[in-house]
Amino acid sequence: MDIIDIKTYMQSIGREARAASRLVAKAETGAKNRALTQMAMAIKRDEQRLLDANAGDVENAKARGLEPAMIDRLSLTPKSIASMAEGLLQIAALADPVGEISDLNYRPSGIQVGKMRVPLGVVGIIYEARPNVTADAAGLCLKAGNAAILRGGSEAIRSNQAIAACVKEGLKAAGLPETAIQVIETTDRAAVGELVTMKEFVDVIVPRGGKGLIERISNEARVPVIKHLDGVCHVYIDQGADLEKAIRIADNAKTQRYGTCNTMETLLVHEEIAGEVLPPLCKIYHDKGVELRGDAAARAIVPTMSEAKEEDWYTEYLAPILSVRVVSGVDHAIEHIAVYGSQHTDSIITEDYSHARRFLREVDSSSVMVNASTRFSDGFEYGLGAEIGISTDKIHARGPVGLEGLTSQKFIVLGDGHIRQ
Amino acid sequence: MDIIDIKTYMQSIGREARAASRLVAKAETGAKNRALTQMAMAIKRDEQRLLDANAGDVENAKARGLEPAMIDRLSLTPKSIASMAEGLLQIAALADPVGEISDLNYRPSGIQVGKMRVPLGVVGIIYEARPNVTADAAGLCLKAGNAAILRGGSEAIRSNQAIAACVKEGLKAAGLPETAIQVIETTDRAAVGELVTMKEFVDVIVPRGGKGLIERISNEARVPVIKHLDGVCHVYIDQGADLEKAIRIADNAKTQRYGTCNTMETLLVHEEIAGEVLPPLCKIYHDKGVELRGDAAARAIVPTMSEAKEEDWYTEYLAPILSVRVVSGVDHAIEHIAVYGSQHTDSIITEDYSHARRFLREVDSSSVMVNASTRFSDGFEYGLGAEIGISTDKIHARGPVGLEGLTSQKFIVLGDGHIRQ
Repeated sequence: MDIIDIKTYMQSIGREARAASRLVAKAETGAKNRALTQMAMAIKRDEQRLLDANAGDVENAKARGLEPAMIDRLSLTPKSIASMAEGLLQIAALADPVGEISDLNYRPSGIQVGKMRVPLGVVGIIYEARPNVTADAAGLCLKAGNAAILRGGSEAIRSNQAIAACVKEGLKAAGLPETAIQVIETTDRAAVGELVTMKEFVDVIVPRGGKGLIERISNEARVPVIKHLDGVCHVYIDQGADLEKAIRIADNAKTQRYGTCNTMETLLVHEEIAGEVLPPLCKIYHDKGVELRGDAAARAIVPTMSEAKEEDWYTEYLAPILSVRVVSGVDHAIEHIAVYGSQHTDSIITEDYSHARRFLREVDSSSVMVNASTRFSDGFEYGLGAEIGISTDKIHARGPVGLEGLTSQKFIVLGDGHIRQ
Repeated sequence: MDIIDIKTYMQSIGREARAASRLVAKAETGAKNRALTQMAMAIKRDEQRLLDANAGDVENAKARGLEPAMIDRLSLTPKSIASMAEGLLQIAALADPVGEISDLNYRPSGIQVGKMRVPLGVVGIIYEARPNVTADAAGLCLKAGNAAILRGGSEAIRSNQAIAACVKEGLKAAGLPETAIQVIETTDRAAVGELVTMKEFVDVIVPRGGKGLIERISNEARVPVIKHLDGVCHVYIDQGADLEKAIRIADNAKTQRYGTCNTMETLLVHEEIAGEVLPPLCKIYHDKGVELRGDAAARAIVPTMSEAKEEDWYTEYLAPILSVRVVSGVDHAIEHIAVYGSQHTDSIITEDYSHARRFLREVDSSSVMVNASTRFSDGFEYGLGAEIGISTDKIHARGPVGLEGLTSQKFIVLGDGHIRQ
């Protein structure tokens, strides 16, 4: 397609999505759940077809010399296919957020005023290699009453189309419009440019992927973006920490998984407890192969650390590397997080009530914790059922974004002939 | 100032606001309320000074030949000054939204997960002639724990600076940073361009004023905008309407005030009830001097109506003009509103349970009503206490935006040494 064709193609996708969104918004909960269940069944039944389509993508990616980590994210297995289907069934089991009425109260004028939860309309999802996002995003958007336009990475196009066929089968079986979930069929980059600027057809964009993708889309978009940039997460071990809890949490926050956004990247330790906590904790890190980069005070206690540079405090390593800083107290810790953090997830380890209370209020991050591992920052762990991403924005949705983040609330007013005086 | 100076000036304003926002975010409720009370006292005390400053603005505006409606909005009176002070005292009396913890529940892992309401950070307000917005916006932003950067119309610059002096006096008296509320002192248009693109210093922009201003700012902004465009509001009189209520509400929705965004602009009437309801209702409109523009069916019933053109259905008259359309039922009404409405406020008049239920769910507007006048769509009437505007967006805030719309929620996690398995 040339660029004019792409504009026409995307406009047509957008118009179809807008029309479908009105039908999905008023669809009954039962119909949405039937569609989700049928999608899951189709995915399980078509396991071999999905594996074959995926093999084509993987072969192509290898021929193009993609890096192994990318090929790993691209690859489907019988296990990952089963968990895609399971994910859809879990979404079907969640309560329907659409139409929920809250805070309905009588006002002095006699009217009742409340709020009703409503879909956002049309959600555009832009993602990279992982084909499972096709099923996850389709399921979440549908349950929240939205139409979705999905644009996966070009390297996963065969896999995504095979999954999309199952999604459409589910929609059809439930009597819902197949255009409620559309997968963009061109791999042309210009399609993304159209998608993120079609304000008349798209209500919100959710980019999922690396920082580069998200920054590019945020800069280009004229449609609001629910975005998730870095996760430079901190654990602060306060003077008043319980040592055993501190070591357990600091270990888990760094080493349970290295490549996730809620992994700790910088450890802050109070100067009065550093001499006690750093030696045993650093031994654990050392045994697990974690490279440590510390400030002068930390290196005075654990001389095997290398020297942390200014840029280390800003860095999301996503790797077995940890920067370590000794701080003078809770104020210094809060200040460090304000300057270097990414407003993702930060945790204080303390038994001191006043420090915990201050840290909770004053740290301006999407998740703030006391005596818990940053690794808990996750939609499933929080009980949202599933998440479409973790927002580090403040507008609209913050933290893990589940069904609620894919909806809005309108005011409803019930009267009995009431007029304004 | 030349353009480079303005960039430097605005960056400095932004930096100060960001620094102040951290102090205001953690300010105690009592301090914020003291500041608001002191601002109100200073405004009352300085009545004459405000009137003098305002007289200078008004004189200047007249010399520049501004239209009378604009001069009316610009003019302060002892009464409007008193109500500015009263507004600040009312905001002081509202509950503090900041730090409110909700939905704090135990999860199977043992952690407690909840949400804490937090300020947005720095709010930029861009408005036109009305000087009272300076006090209202300052008060709302401060109570919600935000720093604010205010940019009023150039024609109100003396009035705004006089009010700003009272605002700063209040902040100082309560020990809060005077930079928490800053009024931009240059009238250069380039300052707005800087304000709406300083993503590092500004979290959200609220434009208040005409459609032209809001569209211009939305197009230029790189910071999220809480915007309020047209109010093309509808009343639909259903077949199942109580005639007496229908006439009372349709009269009030149009004629209680003509120039407000929640005034009805289009009346939709079911074809089976049109012959009964239109003659007496149109007599009321006629007696009040409302010009009627109808479709063929409406004109067959009330021949004195002029002919409505396609563009009438899209028009926010803000004047004693009403377009009237006869529709075939609730589906037709919902469809008309979806095509021509502005997602602001729409009301159905009916005693029919199923039609009311469908209208409430399916009309996609910021306020949807049953048997009530669209004129109720207002922050005070809804019990929000005050509003900074009415959002017709779906992202973040929708409908009247009060203190809650100027805040966000972060997740908080309370553990006791919990780690992720």
